[in-house]
Amino acid sequence: MTTIDNGVNVQALLDAREVLKGTPDAAQFTWRASSKWQHGVHSTTTIEKFFGLGQEQTHKNETTFAADHPAVFAAEDNGITPIEYLLVGLAGCLTAGVASVAQNRGIQLRSVESTVEGAHDIRGILGADSDVRNGFNDIKVTFRIDADASKEDIEALVAQSQKRSAVYDALTNPTNVTVEVA
Amino acid sequence: MTTIDNGVNVQALLDAREVLKGTPDAAQFTWRASSKWQHGVHSTTTIEKFFGLGQEQTHKNETTFAADHPAVFAAEDNGITPIEYLLVGLAGCLTAGVASVAQNRGIQLRSVESTVEGAHDIRGILGADSDVRNGFNDIKVTFRIDADASKEDIEALVAQSQKRSAVYDALTNPTNVTVEVA
Repeated sequence: MTTIDNGVNVQALLDAREVLKGTPDAAQFTWRASSKWQHGVHSTTTIEKFFGLGQEQTHKNETTFAADHPAVFAAEDNGITPIEYLLVGLAGCLTAGVASVAQNRGIQLRSVESTVEGAHDIRGILGADSDVRNGFNDIKVTFRIDADASKEDIEALVAQSQKRSAVYDALTNPTNVTVEVA
Repeated sequence: MTTIDNGVNVQALLDAREVLKGTPDAAQFTWRASSKWQHGVHSTTTIEKFFGLGQEQTHKNETTFAADHPAVFAAEDNGITPIEYLLVGLAGCLTAGVASVAQNRGIQLRSVESTVEGAHDIRGILGADSDVRNGFNDIKVTFRIDADASKEDIEALVAQSQKRSAVYDALTNPTNVTVEVA
């Protein structure tokens, strides 16, 4: 029998699920970002610490991300646009899900690639038409997966990843966002 | 009279608004990301090209972002988590809005900092409790702004930024996301 190894420690996740069923407080995470305006519409955002399993946690590395607008918006393009970060999160989340579900189902993955496209009518953010929303009109994700599995099993993998995806949920359902000035 | 300069070319944005009112086709943008599974729940996502103003566009630089899960999820922490990318996008979008609106209102900014906190009950993604959603419970953004303006004017800046923010809209309202296997 071949050993399936996609690099995901599924047993640890299954164990965590059982433990957290009885200790809901430990399951309360807080993810944090600190942002600084640079110039124009250029900002940098740093991520390092988060809270979870009842205590402060730290990523292995502190990471800083630049956001800006492109030259076609009369800006300096010192980084991707803020809305593109949502596509990065969606791709990462669905891909992690595919790898985890494949591991759990005993499917060896060889390669997983995806493209994410977000359609955006920028008349909304410019205030050119009040009937146009500010965010994406819609988002389309296309996976190309090479794995030891049938087309049906691969489609089922992707469907299960969607069903458990934090970012897919955050984009397809509303979240309450409070914005304050200290 | 002092010249207000936050580095935002507001006139170009106001001009674009007028032009796009009469040419809605040009306002249809498509933002794109290409993602590749690496190992475990580690993936990398690259952003370079997008479509807008009726033609293919390219960012000044191609940028690649790593996503992974932290050690407390039995993973290698080769990058921030996918859901944290949503916080990066939100901070960048609201900050860009604050700078743009301040420029438009003749308010000189000295510094703009923010922290973003996303509360997340991970029992959802682990499948430990089907009543818990996968995404954030809620998100809180706190701005600290130093500017030549009253507290009320600063609060109004932030409120207007929220009103026109692509990412704020994308997180607080649902978007249709289609996921396919090629």
